[in-house]
Amino acid sequence: MSDPAATPLPPYYAVIFTSVRTPADPAGYEAMAQRMIELAGQQPGFLGVESARGEGGLGITVSYWTSEEAIRNWREQAEHQLAQSLGRREWYASYELRVARVERAYGLPASEAD
Amino acid sequence: MSDPAATPLPPYYAVIFTSVRTPADPAGYEAMAQRMIELAGQQPGFLGVESARGEGGLGITVSYWTSEEAIRNWREQAEHQLAQSLGRREWYASYELRVARVERAYGLPASEAD
Repeated sequence: MSDPAATPLPPYYAVIFTSVRTPADPAGYEAMAQRMIELAGQQPGFLGVESARGEGGLGITVSYWTSEEAIRNWREQAEHQLAQSLGRREWYASYELRVARVERAYGLPASEAD
Repeated sequence: MSDPAATPLPPYYAVIFTSVRTPADPAGYEAMAQRMIELAGQQPGFLGVESARGEGGLGITVSYWTSEEAIRNWREQAEHQLAQSLGRREWYASYELRVARVERAYGLPASEAD
């Protein structure tokens, strides 16, 4: 994940997940985070994902989806539910999850959306 | 910026800016990035900002705004226009900017939006 996601022309949906980690279980967390990205990529309606965690400890993961239904299905996926539960109990000191409808997009190099 | 932004109940707007830096001018870039965050905070309709750049070089900055008009005004702010121009010419190898309408939000600890 070292490039902006190659998403289609809007409209589509974004899940913006901003989190602060606890010190707990870095190896377990890292493995699960990788697994979730792999699993999300297999879900119907998945368009792409971008993720970064800075030195200050704040992490931002944005996943892109064709529809709200695709986001709902991903939220309810069994293995993802287990990860969500572990996240709330162990891995995250705080987080905010926002579901948003992407209306416009512009890129460099200029994308089709420009 | 070490916590998720404390945003109000949706709806509101998000500008998701995902970028890959060139090797050029790290000090100048860092100073301008800080200045832009300070300046954005003084704009009408600004709600908050979250930013992270990971080891892979991908940076994600999400700023939150009350309306599309507030986003337009910020895009056209004179000093910000200069930064955008420098960004395109020098600082960014690639970027994608997405404007999205936040429809729902959930947090840990549980926010008012839950």
